[in-house]
Amino acid sequence: MIIVMAPGAKQEEIDYVLSRLGERGYQHHISRGVERTLIGAIGAHEGEKEALAEQLMLLPGVDRVVPILRPYKLVSQEHAVEPSVVRIGGVPFGRKHVAVISGPCAVENEKQMLEAAVAAKRAGAAVLRGGAYKPRTSPYAFQGLGEAGLEMLAAAREATGLPFLTEIMDVRQVEAVEAVADGIQVGARNMQNYDLLREVGAAKKPVVLKRGFAATVQEWLRAAEYVAAAGNLDVILCERGIRTFETETRFTFDLAGMAAAKLETHLPIIADPSHATGNHKLVPPMALAALAGGADGLMVEMHPHPDRALSDGPQSLTPKRLLGLMDQVRNLCLALGLELAVPE
Amino acid sequence: MIIVMAPGAKQEEIDYVLSRLGERGYQHHISRGVERTLIGAIGAHEGEKEALAEQLMLLPGVDRVVPILRPYKLVSQEHAVEPSVVRIGGVPFGRKHVAVISGPCAVENEKQMLEAAVAAKRAGAAVLRGGAYKPRTSPYAFQGLGEAGLEMLAAAREATGLPFLTEIMDVRQVEAVEAVADGIQVGARNMQNYDLLREVGAAKKPVVLKRGFAATVQEWLRAAEYVAAAGNLDVILCERGIRTFETETRFTFDLAGMAAAKLETHLPIIADPSHATGNHKLVPPMALAALAGGADGLMVEMHPHPDRALSDGPQSLTPKRLLGLMDQVRNLCLALGLELAVPE
Amino acid sequence: MIIVMAPGAKQEEIDYVLSRLGERGYQHHISRGVERTLIGAIGAHEGEKEALAEQLMLLPGVDRVVPILRPYKLVSQEHAVEPSVVRIGGVPFGRKHVAVISGPCAVENEKQMLEAAVAAKRAGAAVLRGGAYKPRTSPYAFQGLGEAGLEMLAAAREATGLPFLTEIMDVRQVEAVEAVADGIQVGARNMQNYDLLREVGAAKKPVVLKRGFAATVQEWLRAAEYVAAAGNLDVILCERGIRTFETETRFTFDLAGMAAAKLETHLPIIADPSHATGNHKLVPPMALAALAGGADGLMVEMHPHPDRALSDGPQSLTPKRLLGLMDQVRNLCLALGLELAVPE
Amino acid sequence: MIIVMAPGAKQEEIDYVLSRLGERGYQHHISRGVERTLIGAIGAHEGEKEALAEQLMLLPGVDRVVPILRPYKLVSQEHAVEPSVVRIGGVPFGRKHVAVISGPCAVENEKQMLEAAVAAKRAGAAVLRGGAYKPRTSPYAFQGLGEAGLEMLAAAREATGLPFLTEIMDVRQVEAVEAVADGIQVGARNMQNYDLLREVGAAKKPVVLKRGFAATVQEWLRAAEYVAAAGNLDVILCERGIRTFETETRFTFDLAGMAAAKLETHLPIIADPSHATGNHKLVPPMALAALAGGADGLMVEMHPHPDRALSDGPQSLTPKRLLGLMDQVRNLCLALGLELAVPE
Repeated sequence: MIIVMAPGAKQEEIDYVLSRLGERGYQHHISRGVERTLIGAIGAHEGEKEALAEQLMLLPGVDRVVPILRPYKLVSQEHAVEPSVVRIGGVPFGRKHVAVISGPCAVENEKQMLEAAVAAKRAGAAVLRGGAYKPRTSPYAFQGLGEAGLEMLAAAREATGLPFLTEIMDVRQVEAVEAVADGIQVGARNMQNYDLLREVGAAKKPVVLKRGFAATVQEWLRAAEYVAAAGNLDVILCERGIRTFETETRFTFDLAGMAAAKLETHLPIIADPSHATGNHKLVPPMALAALAGGADGLMVEMHPHPDRALSDGPQSLTPKRLLGLMDQVRNLCLALGLELAVPE
Repeated sequence: MIIVMAPGAKQEEIDYVLSRLGERGYQHHISRGVERTLIGAIGAHEGEKEALAEQLMLLPGVDRVVPILRPYKLVSQEHAVEPSVVRIGGVPFGRKHVAVISGPCAVENEKQMLEAAVAAKRAGAAVLRGGAYKPRTSPYAFQGLGEAGLEMLAAAREATGLPFLTEIMDVRQVEAVEAVADGIQVGARNMQNYDLLREVGAAKKPVVLKRGFAATVQEWLRAAEYVAAAGNLDVILCERGIRTFETETRFTFDLAGMAAAKLETHLPIIADPSHATGNHKLVPPMALAALAGGADGLMVEMHPHPDRALSDGPQSLTPKRLLGLMDQVRNLCLALGLELAVPE
Repeated sequence: MIIVMAPGAKQEEIDYVLSRLGERGYQHHISRGVERTLIGAIGAHEGEKEALAEQLMLLPGVDRVVPILRPYKLVSQEHAVEPSVVRIGGVPFGRKHVAVISGPCAVENEKQMLEAAVAAKRAGAAVLRGGAYKPRTSPYAFQGLGEAGLEMLAAAREATGLPFLTEIMDVRQVEAVEAVADGIQVGARNMQNYDLLREVGAAKKPVVLKRGFAATVQEWLRAAEYVAAAGNLDVILCERGIRTFETETRFTFDLAGMAAAKLETHLPIIADPSHATGNHKLVPPMALAALAGGADGLMVEMHPHPDRALSDGPQSLTPKRLLGLMDQVRNLCLALGLELAVPE
Repeated sequence: MIIVMAPGAKQEEIDYVLSRLGERGYQHHISRGVERTLIGAIGAHEGEKEALAEQLMLLPGVDRVVPILRPYKLVSQEHAVEPSVVRIGGVPFGRKHVAVISGPCAVENEKQMLEAAVAAKRAGAAVLRGGAYKPRTSPYAFQGLGEAGLEMLAAAREATGLPFLTEIMDVRQVEAVEAVADGIQVGARNMQNYDLLREVGAAKKPVVLKRGFAATVQEWLRAAEYVAAAGNLDVILCERGIRTFETETRFTFDLAGMAAAKLETHLPIIADPSHATGNHKLVPPMALAALAGGADGLMVEMHPHPDRALSDGPQSLTPKRLLGLMDQVRNLCLALGLELAVPE
């Protein structure tokens, strides 16, 4: 970090800063200009940097403290020689490998889930999705089927051969989901549920980490660092829209944020145009935009009968619309030199 | 809800909407205008209203669906004849009763917590705060002392007689915290952690529910409804700033959002100018602004030595600054006709 | 509009609403449900709808007033049988015709502008851009060359045959710019400068209307309606990012907002990834994303020597990087079935 | 500014940065640490600092450039020994002097304006407001009476003795408004209309500069610097809400932003709870909050008959509600030690 002293800071104020740095075992180098003194400081303890910066900021004679290093390590580009490939049940994401994850918002019953799985496979999606545990803004709304939903997902996998991904919301669900699912999703509302991050970090399945809708790119990467620091480097990030003043779409799809994150991390990043826009008419153009903008895959909601869906109907594609979108996706991948995973 | 049909909607399209309403047991009344037909619908099942509205939106001939009712009940003003008073360890909040909650961001050690508690009492704060479990954006930062921290809070209570409030982050912490604390805080990052809301809803202690920094007032009230629906109506809401484009302050303190929430709910609402601004210089004016704007209490961070704090030093008042602020608070409460709780 | 009466509204309150509607010449139809009465109202005067809705909202017994119609006409899809094509100096935008507009942020001198123009043409851009009048956040920064800048733009057009577009900031500049430029740009900071919108609405040149960085899609379309209502339907909308909490990019590029606007209007919409991201590394992926997401063209900043640019260097492509991007653009247009305009 | 070199930057890269600094006449001091080299640079030309910083950022071996100085001078606290007092027609704002500005959103006719003026005076407002030129989002809405409106404002001043303030939107209106009004308001939508800022900077009347609803505190102060740099230091800033995701209020009232601005500038800052909230029920609590939070005055909309208002009815107080609010304001000013201007 750089400690910028105020103009006219006294020598004793500078000395006190140096003594505080010394206490914590930091090395320093000083630069005295005409108006200001700068102190560069390097220290070993990753975990206390921010607290120390905040403390120094309050000392007399200090104008400000400027951090230099990004506050994550394992997920940063410096940590890997090339972009990572992460697999969900064998399907690769990253390093020019892309795939489409599709299925309903919520698992509603066996028939619906199976119908959706067959339609997803026919269209060319390589991974299934479906929620067994649902985060709902109203306590009176449908809250998901729980473990029964997990069984229906497993049955759909059995029938189609497609691996599946499902969301967890609570540390107590990790064990059951890890046992059966091919991938674990952490939803936007839980991106900063740190206990949950630590638990999925200890799991043996890949994690899809959705960006919190009020999370900066930096916070998103730090959340991924939590998972990685707990031992799980199989993390796929997922951009799904941020909350802004615009209400014409449900959230604001931040593709430039996704591209900026890709400048920082070696992890694959996929995009979810369904939650981002909340409107099935906007899903196809935004799915294509995401791929052209560098996404390593897509998550797209599809329901056999959106006008009967228990949640998120307005943003769900019909099986027919998914077929049409997948034709465009194949065409685009060809033009962009991307390898699209196909269902086995 | 009102279903607004598109201009030129066919009779069969209108009939289909009516049949879908009939399926779900909704009553309807129709209004045929020159250009459009409106269908008013009333139904009994609170939980399915939103899903049904989403489904109807997708039907042919439907232009839009307009909800009429607010999606919460127990926390709404209609549910209570007058504003509620909620007590933390005997200290009342609401209906012209206000109190100040103060203490450090994190419990760091026994000496620090005790020093803070004594200073809080001397200044006139009626409730203590201190974090034993800490949500931190970096996995490498100080994560709190856990149960040892709870014991230090209890010791500080013993020494000063002040009740205390502390945050939980994980369903597994509810039991330990409920057993010892006088109030349970749900932090901003967990406002939509629905499993946690249900658990504190089953607890026998009052809950301070912080507004998520990307949560609308409506979502905040719905989160409170989760706690209430699980059986706990002793909820105090806490405004602590929302995330916006402005970076001069850490968050944007939304006092008008607090006042708007008070038009909707009977629950008391307090304000936390420390987290909202992130700058101790802004805490005193914003504390006074909150009270003048209708807050039922304040939560203010104070640390015996902010320049040694392990977290949130820049926004912490020193004991001396808290003394100065409390003088102003007493003066203002007098002018506004508010009854300020004093430590026993 | 629909006037939703409160439960238990009295007949005299309903009658007063009807009398107010009658005063303004509105027709109405009433629907009496079990709990509520709805009043549908249709009136003739476009200009007073909003004021009337605001007035009715304040009447006793009224719960809320719900507008039905979108508040713009000339720019809406209903106003045109198919998407419009707008030409800047002969170069078409819209209905599958796309083109790239390129050049420096500011015209700095004759040599720089000429160099930029030659490089733009070589890369395959069909229209030039360059600012003669510059909006700058600091009064001490370079404010543009004014009319001398316009002459340099004209000279660059002379040398390359490319038409040019330039921004106006003040009603007093309209005449000079209209006389010489092929297109007039209204910048984001002036999107709601209504006097300026009226003046460019009276001009005989096409207008590129950038979205204000805090403007909703609806406000953007209303701003276009100002220009159209003043007589100029040759409007190209331009998405250039909105202001949000994310700081990793300069603004948040709202491609879904662009796609949502295209569901509403027949006007062509282009995208400016340079201002949206503020980072030249993000310009190529976001340029491709915009085209795949349905943009009718691109505006991309390029400077012969970004590290000598008087403004916006960090977001400017070098001529070489523009060449690379244009190769990708040509490839993508082929795959998407778009007709890319080439310089003559 | 501080130029932070990347780890492992070569000597020739450092030398090139130094040569570029030398070119522009900047002094520098170098600090070589174990991992990084820092270059502190001080230069004379205020106007080119940002462009130079942007250029240096692009040079090889440079990691980042950190600005040190705030980009405004005349309006900063360093420029004045104590807070400024600015007078509108003799009524002082600043340094513990506060006053209330009230009146309708738009001047509608002579009778309405006179009624409003008499009511404002009776309640205790010291300055009148009323719009003759109106910025409206729809081209079909009432656009104001123009010069006839100015005459009605002058007549209302004649009748009551209260000075008045009115908004300009276009450089062509400056002369007429300056000739008759006691104060000139620049609205939120024009805060970055730099030509307009320069023109009011050359006027001889005090300027009330509203914060743009997407402007940071820093941009707001820079806009004030534009007016000051053009020669007019009689500037009163006005907080009126910023645009965020929250829709329960029309804008988000940023009182902490106001307080943060007061840490930076010597100019007085007033607050407008009417535009900020858009709801007359929220105006009284937010007016009081603003004063308790340090506002140097209030701007409050009042209309003799809000349910007949041609604009902004829902946020306008009735004369009776203004009377009630002014009682609370007087009481609060007494408690806070503020001197409230009374009408003569």
